[in-house]
Amino acid sequence: MRKHFAEELDDLKERLLYMGGLVETSVHRGVHAFLERNTALAESVLKETEPEINRLQVEIDQEVLRLLALQQPMAVDLRFLAAVLKITNDLERIGDLAVNMVQAAMRPHELATAVIDLPRMADRTQFMVHAALDSLVSRDPRLARQVLTTDDEVDRIRDQIFRDLIQRMTREPGEIELALSLLFVARNLERISDHATNIAEDVIFWVEGVDVRHHLQS
Amino acid sequence: MRKHFAEELDDLKERLLYMGGLVETSVHRGVHAFLERNTALAESVLKETEPEINRLQVEIDQEVLRLLALQQPMAVDLRFLAAVLKITNDLERIGDLAVNMVQAAMRPHELATAVIDLPRMADRTQFMVHAALDSLVSRDPRLARQVLTTDDEVDRIRDQIFRDLIQRMTREPGEIELALSLLFVARNLERISDHATNIAEDVIFWVEGVDVRHHLQS
Repeated sequence: MRKHFAEELDDLKERLLYMGGLVETSVHRGVHAFLERNTALAESVLKETEPEINRLQVEIDQEVLRLLALQQPMAVDLRFLAAVLKITNDLERIGDLAVNMVQAAMRPHELATAVIDLPRMADRTQFMVHAALDSLVSRDPRLARQVLTTDDEVDRIRDQIFRDLIQRMTREPGEIELALSLLFVARNLERISDHATNIAEDVIFWVEGVDVRHHLQS
Repeated sequence: MRKHFAEELDDLKERLLYMGGLVETSVHRGVHAFLERNTALAESVLKETEPEINRLQVEIDQEVLRLLALQQPMAVDLRFLAAVLKITNDLERIGDLAVNMVQAAMRPHELATAVIDLPRMADRTQFMVHAALDSLVSRDPRLARQVLTTDDEVDRIRDQIFRDLIQRMTREPGEIELALSLLFVARNLERISDHATNIAEDVIFWVEGVDVRHHLQS
């Protein structure tokens, strides 16, 4: 027996959330692998979550194409399916960035990370990824808009981290390579927060039919 | 009179290519604005190409939704429309990265950029963006695969640039901030080449129905 379209959309949403959960896990593990130099955590990202995220992207995209072909959805459902195609892209990219952090975790780093605001930046970024997906499942554009404002906060923390690290490199040339790896982790967190912002914008477009992408950014 | 679906797809392709051409222009101007410290070029990206790219993304995405709703395309056309949604995402991201380079161009930098391989990296990256779009318009998966191999070359150049710049920062702490801005431009070029790779992968999926994304990457 064929499932009803509404059920199929629910299944798809569930699978997308499962993918999102894995991406959250990757980010969390990536950051902590780096901060705590935990190679077991790092390996779990490379060997478990990352391949599973990639597999899910292919699978979900194929499912979207199948539904577009068979169900010929209109209006809000059509916008939802289009949003899913863009969101799997963003989630997969976030997964790649978590892998970058994991690779940074594999290199030695001894800088007192506590002096810089990386843990706080990681915390806000993880909130953004989680809230972006939450706004999707609860169809909540208000929560999606909260993601957009948190992005500004993340940008401010990043500016502070960059200033601190440049000072540090100037004072201690021997620490340049270490400071650079912290800079790149901060840069990765910034990009993750940008992708969470994209997802939130896709949710607003899906629910309200309003394309907020280039109104808020410009 | 309603246009035929084939004509509408051609129009869409043309508009996507126009967007792609603007993105290429942005990248070209962004790199040269940075290398030559040309603020007029930098301003033309911020005030002309970038807003136009953003406008086109919204417009093209809406057109895809309209075609999906009204034409209920199947198989290869459906995959094409899905690919367009992902490609506008990538193009818009490339545009953002060009803006990043432009912003770096606005800051003073005096490093002898000729000693490092940034112009060559910029050249290969521009080839990738151009070839990715060419492979789309000519439906040429062979050209798309060439984009994927050029990506490896770009990664090698980036590694070399990173090694050179880290050496330089260690020797000349006074040049750290300048070297960092070169590092970030190299990083942006790397990301642009990643997006061109995504576009090439979407083209292969569209034409051959083969999802190469996570076979080649892993």
